Amino acid sequence: MVNLFKIKSKKAGLPPGSLVHVGEQKTEKVKITIIDYDETQFQEKEVKSVEECFPYKDKPTVTWIDINGVHQVDIIEKIGKEFALHPLVLEDVMNTGQRPKIDYFEDYIFIVLKIPYYHEEKKELSIEQLSLFLGKTFVLSFHEDAKYIFKPIRDRLETVKYPIRKFGADYLAYTLIDIAIDNYFVIMENIENKLDDIEDDLLEKPSTKTLHAIHNLKRELLFLNKSLWPSREVINSLKRGESPLVKASTKIYLRDVYDHTIRIIEGIETFREMLTGMMDIYLSSVSNKMNEIMMFLTIIGTIFIPLTFITGIYGMNFKYMPELKWYWGYPTVLAIMLGIGVIMLFFFRRKKWL
Amino acid sequence: MVNLFKIKSKKAGLPPGSLVHVGEQKTEKVKITIIDYDETQFQEKEVKSVEECFPYKDKPTVTWIDINGVHQVDIIEKIGKEFALHPLVLEDVMNTGQRPKIDYFEDYIFIVLKIPYYHEEKKELSIEQLSLFLGKTFVLSFHEDAKYIFKPIRDRLETVKYPIRKFGADYLAYTLIDIAIDNYFVIMENIENKLDDIEDDLLEKPSTKTLHAIHNLKRELLFLNKSLWPSREVINSLKRGESPLVKASTKIYLRDVYDHTIRIIEGIETFREMLTGMMDIYLSSVSNKMNEIMMFLTIIGTIFIPLTFITGIYGMNFKYMPELKWYWGYPTVLAIMLGIGVIMLFFFRRKKWL
Amino acid sequence: MVNLFKIKSKKAGLPPGSLVHVGEQKTEKVKITIIDYDETQFQEKEVKSVEECFPYKDKPTVTWIDINGVHQVDIIEKIGKEFALHPLVLEDVMNTGQRPKIDYFEDYIFIVLKIPYYHEEKKELSIEQLSLFLGKTFVLSFHEDAKYIFKPIRDRLETVKYPIRKFGADYLAYTLIDIAIDNYFVIMENIENKLDDIEDDLLEKPSTKTLHAIHNLKRELLFLNKSLWPSREVINSLKRGESPLVKASTKIYLRDVYDHTIRIIEGIETFREMLTGMMDIYLSSVSNKMNEIMMFLTIIGTIFIPLTFITGIYGMNFKYMPELKWYWGYPTVLAIMLGIGVIMLFFFRRKKWL
Amino acid sequence: MVNLFKIKSKKAGLPPGSLVHVGEQKTEKVKITIIDYDETQFQEKEVKSVEECFPYKDKPTVTWIDINGVHQVDIIEKIGKEFALHPLVLEDVMNTGQRPKIDYFEDYIFIVLKIPYYHEEKKELSIEQLSLFLGKTFVLSFHEDAKYIFKPIRDRLETVKYPIRKFGADYLAYTLIDIAIDNYFVIMENIENKLDDIEDDLLEKPSTKTLHAIHNLKRELLFLNKSLWPSREVINSLKRGESPLVKASTKIYLRDVYDHTIRIIEGIETFREMLTGMMDIYLSSVSNKMNEIMMFLTIIGTIFIPLTFITGIYGMNFKYMPELKWYWGYPTVLAIMLGIGVIMLFFFRRKKWL
Amino acid sequence: MVNLFKIKSKKAGLPPGSLVHVGEQKTEKVKITIIDYDETQFQEKEVKSVEECFPYKDKPTVTWIDINGVHQVDIIEKIGKEFALHPLVLEDVMNTGQRPKIDYFEDYIFIVLKIPYYHEEKKELSIEQLSLFLGKTFVLSFHEDAKYIFKPIRDRLETVKYPIRKFGADYLAYTLIDIAIDNYFVIMENIENKLDDIEDDLLEKPSTKTLHAIHNLKRELLFLNKSLWPSREVINSLKRGESPLVKASTKIYLRDVYDHTIRIIEGIETFREMLTGMMDIYLSSVSNKMNEIMMFLTIIGTIFIPLTFITGIYGMNFKYMPELKWYWGYPTVLAIMLGIGVIMLFFFRRKKWL
Repeated sequence: MVNLFKIKSKKAGLPPGSLVHVGEQKTEKVKITIIDYDETQFQEKEVKSVEECFPYKDKPTVTWIDINGVHQVDIIEKIGKEFALHPLVLEDVMNTGQRPKIDYFEDYIFIVLKIPYYHEEKKELSIEQLSLFLGKTFVLSFHEDAKYIFKPIRDRLETVKYPIRKFGADYLAYTLIDIAIDNYFVIMENIENKLDDIEDDLLEKPSTKTLHAIHNLKRELLFLNKSLWPSREVINSLKRGESPLVKASTKIYLRDVYDHTIRIIEGIETFREMLTGMMDIYLSSVSNKMNEIMMFLTIIGTIFIPLTFITGIYGMNFKYMPELKWYWGYPTVLAIMLGIGVIMLFFFRRKKWL
Repeated sequence: MVNLFKIKSKKAGLPPGSLVHVGEQKTEKVKITIIDYDETQFQEKEVKSVEECFPYKDKPTVTWIDINGVHQVDIIEKIGKEFALHPLVLEDVMNTGQRPKIDYFEDYIFIVLKIPYYHEEKKELSIEQLSLFLGKTFVLSFHEDAKYIFKPIRDRLETVKYPIRKFGADYLAYTLIDIAIDNYFVIMENIENKLDDIEDDLLEKPSTKTLHAIHNLKRELLFLNKSLWPSREVINSLKRGESPLVKASTKIYLRDVYDHTIRIIEGIETFREMLTGMMDIYLSSVSNKMNEIMMFLTIIGTIFIPLTFITGIYGMNFKYMPELKWYWGYPTVLAIMLGIGVIMLFFFRRKKWL
Repeated sequence: MVNLFKIKSKKAGLPPGSLVHVGEQKTEKVKITIIDYDETQFQEKEVKSVEECFPYKDKPTVTWIDINGVHQVDIIEKIGKEFALHPLVLEDVMNTGQRPKIDYFEDYIFIVLKIPYYHEEKKELSIEQLSLFLGKTFVLSFHEDAKYIFKPIRDRLETVKYPIRKFGADYLAYTLIDIAIDNYFVIMENIENKLDDIEDDLLEKPSTKTLHAIHNLKRELLFLNKSLWPSREVINSLKRGESPLVKASTKIYLRDVYDHTIRIIEGIETFREMLTGMMDIYLSSVSNKMNEIMMFLTIIGTIFIPLTFITGIYGMNFKYMPELKWYWGYPTVLAIMLGIGVIMLFFFRRKKWL
Repeated sequence: MVNLFKIKSKKAGLPPGSLVHVGEQKTEKVKITIIDYDETQFQEKEVKSVEECFPYKDKPTVTWIDINGVHQVDIIEKIGKEFALHPLVLEDVMNTGQRPKIDYFEDYIFIVLKIPYYHEEKKELSIEQLSLFLGKTFVLSFHEDAKYIFKPIRDRLETVKYPIRKFGADYLAYTLIDIAIDNYFVIMENIENKLDDIEDDLLEKPSTKTLHAIHNLKRELLFLNKSLWPSREVINSLKRGESPLVKASTKIYLRDVYDHTIRIIEGIETFREMLTGMMDIYLSSVSNKMNEIMMFLTIIGTIFIPLTFITGIYGMNFKYMPELKWYWGYPTVLAIMLGIGVIMLFFFRRKKWL
Repeated sequence: MVNLFKIKSKKAGLPPGSLVHVGEQKTEKVKITIIDYDETQFQEKEVKSVEECFPYKDKPTVTWIDINGVHQVDIIEKIGKEFALHPLVLEDVMNTGQRPKIDYFEDYIFIVLKIPYYHEEKKELSIEQLSLFLGKTFVLSFHEDAKYIFKPIRDRLETVKYPIRKFGADYLAYTLIDIAIDNYFVIMENIENKLDDIEDDLLEKPSTKTLHAIHNLKRELLFLNKSLWPSREVINSLKRGESPLVKASTKIYLRDVYDHTIRIIEGIETFREMLTGMMDIYLSSVSNKMNEIMMFLTIIGTIFIPLTFITGIYGMNFKYMPELKWYWGYPTVLAIMLGIGVIMLFFFRRKKWL
């Protein structure tokens, strides 16, 4: 599903702070989008070179710089220098195998989150890394290909109707986090649908495919859990307000995201217990089915074995076997055998073995 | 049983505080009941429009506004504005997939609890959401269809005999919580009865139905547990008295509800361990039964196989087989076969295989 | 074993503090015994009416009022009023389904404990509730039928030899708690004996009875555990000395009871792990036995199948079968079949299948 | 293995502090050894009567009184009175079923530890109780038969080479504890050897004996664990230095014993997980073996069943069966049957069933 | 895999602080390398005698003394005396069975870590012990054969490009710890590859080899886990900065190593859950395969049993069996038998048994 250590180990032995992109190889150009706004004005532009971002750094308006692609070392390095970001943190941005975490620095907060999505081609759960820097008047967001999920936020920023533009950079960071966590709900709905399918399969036609479906789902939940637990800690730390960069009014919103995280975590737990139950049912229904077949076949065999024994008796070549000469001998034996068969069937049925 | 994520995910991407009803679609009209009382007087009326509630807001008497139905956005919105409730909290009221929680605001406490009940038509455990707002002189309660469970409280308020009217809004909130938790006892009794049925089934006639009954019960307990654990936290927080809205005299009552919650939680745990034990007994009794049948059948087969072999011997067409010409040959062989059969039966029985 | 929720749920909906006896129906008269003592004098009497207890309330001597039976509402009510006990607490005394707990009030401590015993008639583990009120100079004890277990304490109070009369009401409460916990040791010894029996059964003749014995024991341990864990908390709270009613000199004794509780809890844990091991041994020995039988039978069958095939060959009616006309044909074939049988037996034995 | 509750329950109902020996009955005389030393002098003598110990009580030199045997009430009582030990603690000394614990008193620390050893005769793990009293200038040690394990300490005290005589009573207590814990290492090595044996058995010849060996080892680890966990707490409490009787310089040594305890606990955990793995391998290898045998036998049967059917066909007595009259009929049929047999063998082999 | 207790127990009974090498016997000479540097200069030399290290002790430059081999008591003793190291700590250096730990002394910090590697010859996971002493201006490192893994650090120290020479001894200790933890990533990648192999095997040809591979991997993860958990505590303690020897600027780097440790721990956990899943799939696929074979064989048998019965009927020797004389009797019976066989095959196939 996800390579946890295959790539990372290549970095073993390198000095700390070395900027090397760790993740799937990409060749597309990195897209940089700048959104600058305050309560009265709004401006959005896609820029060619990273230097165009620098003037926004010290403006009092809220600036959101969204970097779509983390595989170009020079861009990361330039931004890092301009915004005075710690080299270890830049290393984390480029190494997309991070676990969600939060690091507090003097002038900014560094946040790593994970956005789950279903990979269209591989048909499996994938996880993308979202790195956020929250400063006094700016938010930097780094990700590989998650631009589209920020669409609703950009829309909300454009229209004055939503209160988002009245708040500062911390509220913007909150909306980004909120969107990231909301994506888990989409995945959970998908998983709930699959759970229903498995349940139907279990009742109608349990097969090894069902077993593999159960195991795949278990693994997906395992991976979701692994990225959600630390996310919960990240949001909890933010909402407890350990930094002056997060205003009190924003904390009430963070509490809301926090509740969402807990609900997803509980949902995952519930799903896992349900899967365990389904696994039990699968196993016992498979062995039940197998046992019933075996029993049916054995009964068939068992009915014919005494009958065959009787034919064996009258197949013996003894000279003095009076029955063989009786006129009604043959039909009598046939009738007796029929009778034995019927009695045994009856007996098995009454014992509920058939 | 309960859709955990199917509906919620539709909200992904909406701005926070958007009021959208999340839950089963309802069309009935929302019923609003106002109960206003102090030690000397009592008044109850069902109102048509939400505006009729507003005059009660600032009265020094205790006012209980019960809103039966949370699917009409405008009603929720108007009440929210009048009572100065936070939009995020109103969102939680309408989204019936909340987990039990408590949020403290300056002028009110927001409490979400879950009331379990058996759905008459679907014949399965359902869970309804109860949202409470406790202010200085008012209690707002929102739910979908739980009006009937509050009947005993209304009765107690009407008669002067009970001390409930001497206490304030916090005591009223306590009685609502108490009633909600008491409902779990009813469910637990129901489950205990089912447990007894399963136990009887296990002794008399274990079948796949028993297995499914065990699993259904396990899942019901799982869902009860999921809603009880956070309820416990809610009540614990209230009883620790983190808010001036809850008086010290009420806390002793909350401690009582808290004890009830813990007893139910322990009961759930006990039931789950009992179910695990029953599952073990079911599995081993099913495999026992199957094994016994197979063994019985195999023994039957095994007795006849040597006998059939003997008939085979005397069915051979050798020219020189002296036994075939003996006058007593046939009866002797029959007797020998009977003897072998009896000896084998005896042997199997002595070995306790039959 | 014990009805956890069947009775309690009848109270759902009643106002808090309603005095209703919850437990098995009893009709015998409630017995009230008063023991009053200080270092120099001792007095014990059984009283007819509850009012006779009241004069002892304010005497400086230590007074122990033991109420044997909690099904008469009026007695509980009168005592409650005289000793100024909280209605919620009286409700707990009459509702015998409480879990062990401790509640501190201004003038007294309320303690609920559980005393396990083997029910003579039902031949199963039962649990009785002991409710204690410890005041400055009095101890009230409520129970259904545990009078006999307090016998040794009364004896010790009568004789001056024991130091018990030198200490105050808190030491008396300690001895009552100590006696209650000591009863668990008796039960544990009983269970240890049963464990030994099961172990013997497992080695000699494992049967479904063994399985049920294992499960019954598991359940007994489960119930003991459920009542011991909160007892431990109760005693821990007392020994930490959160109330001025418990003197420092008594705490060292409470530490001793606390140690006992922990030893029983650890014993329960040990027994449970041993039972799990026994369960494993049972399951694998049962399936082993079954497999061995099946294999034995299959081998028997397998030996005769090729032999029967040979008799089949010489039972064929071909005109030109030279062997049939040989003089030694029949004995030769018999010898060959005997040889095959012996070789197969030998082969199976060498492979250790037989 | 160890009787946990059979003996203890006899004490139920006795007043606290009653001195009764609880443990295996012993009749040998109690041996009392006094070792008295400081940096310059050393003296060791075995005394007849307990009174000979008393003069050492107030000497400034370090005095170690070792009592080998705890079944004589009068000795324990006299020492208790002379050294002002609490009756409850003396009760614990005589009741050899204690769990490891530490109790702080004003003038001394009371420590109970467990020393595991292999009982020569019973060939099973036994556990002996070591009770220590650490005072300002004395150490009292009580045990049933562990004198021999203290030999190395006495040797070290005699020679001046080791620094032990420079330190005080607390260091002496530390060495006693260290020796007691070191005994666990000996047991663990023994268990590791048994684990290796089981592993070899599993690869070569898994049998029910292997299963019982696994279970015995599991139980031994269970008992070691039960006595180690509280020992860890005891040593942790000592090393945190909650008492002025333990000097700072000794604490660094206690930290070392503490590390040992943790390593043994982790070793036990590792062994338990390894045993669980071995159990899995045992179960699957047993069922594998059984399945393979059954399959082999069934295949044998299955090959002959169609062949026997063919002989049955030509054993029929129809008048008009042309094959029967063919000259090559018999050899042809034999050849066909041989062919069918070979083809089936080949088929089964290609399917890897044989 | 690793002998946990076989060697250690030999030390039982020795006085604390006795220097005895515990580990595999080695005979090679101990190699001592001194690296001395500050921002402007760098010097590396391998020394013959331990005394050559002593002058570096008090130099203000950072000195790294790397001792490759811990089996020579005299070298350890001399260094211990010169650098004033506690005898208990030296004992830990020589006893290579330590668990990772950190001990704070006045002038230095003592750190034990574990470096995992694959043993070339034994083809199994081995673990080497790394002991570090961090002083104000020096780092002492002791290990058995890990010199090669420190190669990259020496390279980085030689070239001025890397900032490592600007920092003090604490940063050097950090790099050593970082390299040690990085080694776990290499092992984890190796394990991930093995996991993939097992997964492929499970889909294509599950065999007992797969079972053993799963168990070996489980055990490797168990051992990694056991050495990682305490390592995590060590690094956590360092990064919390409990000692003035670790500068604040270094702590941010330690936080990074700490994150790595947690990622490996989570990876181990994930792998263990995946292995559990694979185990389940293995077991159910093995039993599935076995059941399918048994069923196939039984069906074959079951088809021929009724047919053989029919041949038995016409093999009977009754005088009056009209069918036997019919001209078409034989072909008719053959056809009937064929028909029965086909119908049964058809029936089995429709029931999906074949």
